[in-house]
Amino acid sequence: MSSIQRYHVGPRLSEIVVHNNTVYLAGQVAESLEKTVRGQADEVLAAIDRLLGEVGSDKQKLLSVTIYLADMADYDAMNEAWSEWVSSGNTPARATVEARLADPRYKVEMSVTAAL
Amino acid sequence: MSSIQRYHVGPRLSEIVVHNNTVYLAGQVAESLEKTVRGQADEVLAAIDRLLGEVGSDKQKLLSVTIYLADMADYDAMNEAWSEWVSSGNTPARATVEARLADPRYKVEMSVTAAL
Amino acid sequence: MSSIQRYHVGPRLSEIVVHNNTVYLAGQVAESLEKTVRGQADEVLAAIDRLLGEVGSDKQKLLSVTIYLADMADYDAMNEAWSEWVSSGNTPARATVEARLADPRYKVEMSVTAAL
Repeated sequence: MSSIQRYHVGPRLSEIVVHNNTVYLAGQVAESLEKTVRGQADEVLAAIDRLLGEVGSDKQKLLSVTIYLADMADYDAMNEAWSEWVSSGNTPARATVEARLADPRYKVEMSVTAAL
Repeated sequence: MSSIQRYHVGPRLSEIVVHNNTVYLAGQVAESLEKTVRGQADEVLAAIDRLLGEVGSDKQKLLSVTIYLADMADYDAMNEAWSEWVSSGNTPARATVEARLADPRYKVEMSVTAAL
Repeated sequence: MSSIQRYHVGPRLSEIVVHNNTVYLAGQVAESLEKTVRGQADEVLAAIDRLLGEVGSDKQKLLSVTIYLADMADYDAMNEAWSEWVSSGNTPARATVEARLADPRYKVEMSVTAAL
């Protein structure tokens, strides 16, 4: 037996699930669908900050991040946003792959696991 | 040191791996390759129920699910199956992306992490 | 509160992150970009051995592996490498999907979670 905490619980998904000192975030996408990948990545990273903060975690405690890019040509622009944001010395395990996303205007989605 | 339990251990993969009160399922696909995405999703979700049940977990304990759709046009039909199945108030962190799957007839694959 | 260990910490990612007796590896790709998928898979699997070994884990402790193939036509060739490598009786939960990778010459990337 082990307890699970859920936050922003919707009918399809919860934005945050915590179990066993590990935080699982739903795949984060931008709300500003008209933005470039850089702008969308900035929004996604800000959302990750906000969600982790709600449960007392933060980007220094990232464990693993999977980044889905709708177009791998956006790799460098995404990485500019990432590099400015990520905590030096506390970078997570990361994988980046290309995948079409739920809305064709989404350019990037990030799936995050962090420590509490 | 920490113990690992494996179930339905095949030469390439185990359908269930349990460690540290966390359950990892192999990517689940339908057996009825001729079915629509709705029918395949129903099969996949039933398989997840069955596998989680074998180790004393269930869909109320889902932590994180990654859904791979062979065609993102199937997003709404997949979500119909998902919404009927998922436990209200206990939804997992979830990400859904498009990806071609091992057999071109597979329309959906789900990768599940749950709590014990 | 829970401690996190990171190894091969780069500006974008860490190759190894350990938390709560669980090991998260960054997505592993081959260095020999001219190799076939079989050659690249062998390199990736050797990299996984090496990284897990650095923290006292090994392939017998694999929990979950996501395999990204740039071309699903390489599925069988990748599996030949996998089957020769994986520890019989200790196979992980596994999902394999097609996704374009960061460099078009990458044919396979593997994202690994293991127990300590």
